[in-house]
Amino acid sequence: MTHFMNRKDDMVTDAIDGVIAASGGTLARLDGYPHIRVVIRADWDKSKVAVVSGGGSGHEPAHAGFVGAGMLTAAVCGDIFASPSVDAVLAGILAVTGPAGCLLVVKNYTGDRLNFGLAAERARAFGRKVSMVVVDDDMALPHLPQSRGVAGTLFVHKIAGALAEQGSDLETVTEAAERVISTTHSIGMSLDTCTVPGSPKELRIPEGMAELGLGIHGEAGFEQIPFDGAREAIAAVADKLAPSMSDGRYVALLNNLGGVSVLEMSVLAADLMKSRIGDRIDLLIGPAAMMTSLAMRGFSISVLKVSAEDAALLGAPCAMPAWPGCVMLAPETILPLPDGLAPIKALPSAHTSTKAFLTSCCNMLISAEDDLNALDAKSGDGDTGSTLAGASRALLTAMDSLPLADHTQLYRAIGQELSQTMGGSSGVLLAIFFAAAGDAASAGMPMRQALMAGLERMQEIGGAKPGDRTMIDALHPALVGLEAGLGDAAQAARDGANYTATLLSANAGRASYINAEQLHGHVDPGAEAVARLFEHLAA
Amino acid sequence: MTHFMNRKDDMVTDAIDGVIAASGGTLARLDGYPHIRVVIRADWDKSKVAVVSGGGSGHEPAHAGFVGAGMLTAAVCGDIFASPSVDAVLAGILAVTGPAGCLLVVKNYTGDRLNFGLAAERARAFGRKVSMVVVDDDMALPHLPQSRGVAGTLFVHKIAGALAEQGSDLETVTEAAERVISTTHSIGMSLDTCTVPGSPKELRIPEGMAELGLGIHGEAGFEQIPFDGAREAIAAVADKLAPSMSDGRYVALLNNLGGVSVLEMSVLAADLMKSRIGDRIDLLIGPAAMMTSLAMRGFSISVLKVSAEDAALLGAPCAMPAWPGCVMLAPETILPLPDGLAPIKALPSAHTSTKAFLTSCCNMLISAEDDLNALDAKSGDGDTGSTLAGASRALLTAMDSLPLADHTQLYRAIGQELSQTMGGSSGVLLAIFFAAAGDAASAGMPMRQALMAGLERMQEIGGAKPGDRTMIDALHPALVGLEAGLGDAAQAARDGANYTATLLSANAGRASYINAEQLHGHVDPGAEAVARLFEHLAA
Repeated sequence: MTHFMNRKDDMVTDAIDGVIAASGGTLARLDGYPHIRVVIRADWDKSKVAVVSGGGSGHEPAHAGFVGAGMLTAAVCGDIFASPSVDAVLAGILAVTGPAGCLLVVKNYTGDRLNFGLAAERARAFGRKVSMVVVDDDMALPHLPQSRGVAGTLFVHKIAGALAEQGSDLETVTEAAERVISTTHSIGMSLDTCTVPGSPKELRIPEGMAELGLGIHGEAGFEQIPFDGAREAIAAVADKLAPSMSDGRYVALLNNLGGVSVLEMSVLAADLMKSRIGDRIDLLIGPAAMMTSLAMRGFSISVLKVSAEDAALLGAPCAMPAWPGCVMLAPETILPLPDGLAPIKALPSAHTSTKAFLTSCCNMLISAEDDLNALDAKSGDGDTGSTLAGASRALLTAMDSLPLADHTQLYRAIGQELSQTMGGSSGVLLAIFFAAAGDAASAGMPMRQALMAGLERMQEIGGAKPGDRTMIDALHPALVGLEAGLGDAAQAARDGANYTATLLSANAGRASYINAEQLHGHVDPGAEAVARLFEHLAA
Repeated sequence: MTHFMNRKDDMVTDAIDGVIAASGGTLARLDGYPHIRVVIRADWDKSKVAVVSGGGSGHEPAHAGFVGAGMLTAAVCGDIFASPSVDAVLAGILAVTGPAGCLLVVKNYTGDRLNFGLAAERARAFGRKVSMVVVDDDMALPHLPQSRGVAGTLFVHKIAGALAEQGSDLETVTEAAERVISTTHSIGMSLDTCTVPGSPKELRIPEGMAELGLGIHGEAGFEQIPFDGAREAIAAVADKLAPSMSDGRYVALLNNLGGVSVLEMSVLAADLMKSRIGDRIDLLIGPAAMMTSLAMRGFSISVLKVSAEDAALLGAPCAMPAWPGCVMLAPETILPLPDGLAPIKALPSAHTSTKAFLTSCCNMLISAEDDLNALDAKSGDGDTGSTLAGASRALLTAMDSLPLADHTQLYRAIGQELSQTMGGSSGVLLAIFFAAAGDAASAGMPMRQALMAGLERMQEIGGAKPGDRTMIDALHPALVGLEAGLGDAAQAARDGANYTATLLSANAGRASYINAEQLHGHVDPGAEAVARLFEHLAA
């Protein structure tokens, strides 16, 4: 099993129970599990037009997550990627429809059209006033006689739901829904397929490719294109949407298909603003997971041309947390940096051998990047090599602005540089190390003793001591050994680094979160970096 | 590249630009990219206590997504999984701190402690009133002298932020934060590691195992346990949390670590309510992605013992969409099914050979489940086999309640059963097929003609015709061939099914969303099912 579920057959009812529990009493459901899975506003009194939607499950928060005042009155939930039955839809309609009638919002898939359509017929036979709209916003397959309904359906839910909440009659709500559908266009892109619970994963999209125009049920996209980053992905999607967009004011809905990190979705949002359609977008909904395809690593963009009236309906308050709101885009405000940050910089000066020495050390650390990352992945988060290489690259760039000829100033300048570019605990600790060594050198200490003073200060603030499985386990013996020369220092650093592989617990740094078994036999990456540096200098 | 990003080094600034764009002008940032990445409330006037948090990126929406009235005043963002520099934190503090002072909320990781701690010292040297709290809610590693700070940090953000927004002074806000920290406990579980952008995926967790007590930076969990479904996963987490919970009123925060589908998160919510700690939980935050680890397929649960006052602060309104709200749990409301649904049922009757015939057909379809799913995965969503097998199982269960001895009633009864249990377009279409065949049989038609009448009605409502690459391509020739006997019918069905593999486009059903190249050579799964059924009957 690779999903958080229990019995596959119970997954949808289990999830509905969770949605209702997390609603804190604002949602209820109809009796009739397992075949009838209808989520309803608990406060519904049938005094207004009901807006009912639904379809296959696997698209959460759609549709149950959008049930509440100002959006849906009820959601009828089918099995994963399968339409609910006629009986289930009929139960939903009959449960919420009063004299004001009911609008069914249906995504254009054969099953949904059939089941909702037949249920509407049966409800009309009971004397209920029911209208039905079919959303067909997908632009992926222009050759199809009828397009699919995807994330643009949210525009319909929100605008129809807000109108109904305001007390509009069924004709008005239905006309608005039809108007929205006629100018809504969507397209999706994914880096991987979704995995249906209980089914094996389909390996359809090779690494390095992206599928454009894929459906929300795992259907293959219309084409696979090379994936060349977020900006290109957005550009491909924008190219599909742009021809449908005329002059006017647009709202864009940026939808997470379920498995994209929030970090990446924000990158996509930024790139959308900078894309060829960015300057036509006045309003934004998301980025958020709204119409998902389980945990698919993809996104979709839907656009709708809006009047001021529609914009107001999209912005009308509604309380369900799944609705991310609709914001009016505003120019970015960049505030000036506060005073007191800019440190006093030492004057640059040239010194050929010092420059050569520092350059050689930096290049050595850059070449060790992958090795140190791999080592760190055993006991930490795999970034020690990148952190040190990044700092080395920054130092190389800054080299000619350093006071190379003034060694007491140089310590502090290196520390300052590292604290600005490195981040992470190693950056601060090394800044403290160099700053304290610089202080000691200013006070007249020779290099070895100055470095030892830096080490002492670093231990004091960082809290690590020899034997705690950190870089100190190599650095301390190296500085002691340095009295007898670089060769001895290198050997001492190596012995110290190797010693860390025998330590079964770490008391400082990220490795302290790992259990003994996983640490055993792996040298601490910080200690390894120190040993390699001294070995390089001694060679 | 497997992430939606551009240059790895730009990922965090790109994402911050996206967060600010999506805020619609409510957020601003400090100048100073790329090293200084500080997101600030655009409306901030320094009249109240500032609440500043942050840390490594990769945990979105934490922390920038929680900047806004009622939570954070500013978020200082580091590189992915790396603390921001002292300068960046200092810039954030200086930018937002007025006479009322500033509370720093820091997760207990060495880097954050160092950088925020040193920045606080430097800000104090500038005369700013700064206090700092360190959140250590993780229960995974009891042997550690200091626990990590994970999703429980959100409790601190919300309660301190709400107090600050109400105008409380720095001492009050700091004391509240410390009180919250002292009774907050969290633990996480994941089915897979997260993948750091630009780094290879670490394959640490074997399929079928779950890691318990993992960190939010990809650090390995404390133990791997066999994964046996959502309920057991919640039980393992609840077992870790329960010993820390005393009598009293608790709030639980159910956090998506980033890559779990919304559907699964709702299943986990339902199981949490039913777990051994379920009856101690009065308030719920989530499920939602709040403190993520990129797109990790895991979750965490945090619990906090709350007073009525803290509950009110957790429930205080705040506008940022990333905050899912805090709801008071209420008993589930189950509304009765509306009238008009229950169909008139024919009286059950026994008929040995009819029962044997139907049972044999059902068993054949159940045995074909995997084959038909695999075939459907080529052209659809891979569920044809499961849909037919599920219907067959339901029919087997219902067998003794069917009017087996009354064949004209039996058609309709089977149709009714299928429409109730199958869902999906095939369920409705088969219900229509059997209902129409039953009507024809009632009117005196022999079986073959009655079935043909059913097929005609199904084509009329479903819109598919022979040659559209559906089950009809096998069913129609089979019913024609049936005049000459079962052997001819089976051969005709097989020929018809094989013919679908030569059709380069589908005009109905899900296969119509697929392009020609992908369809070629694959038999339509519905047609294959029909062919197998007739071959089985002829054998």
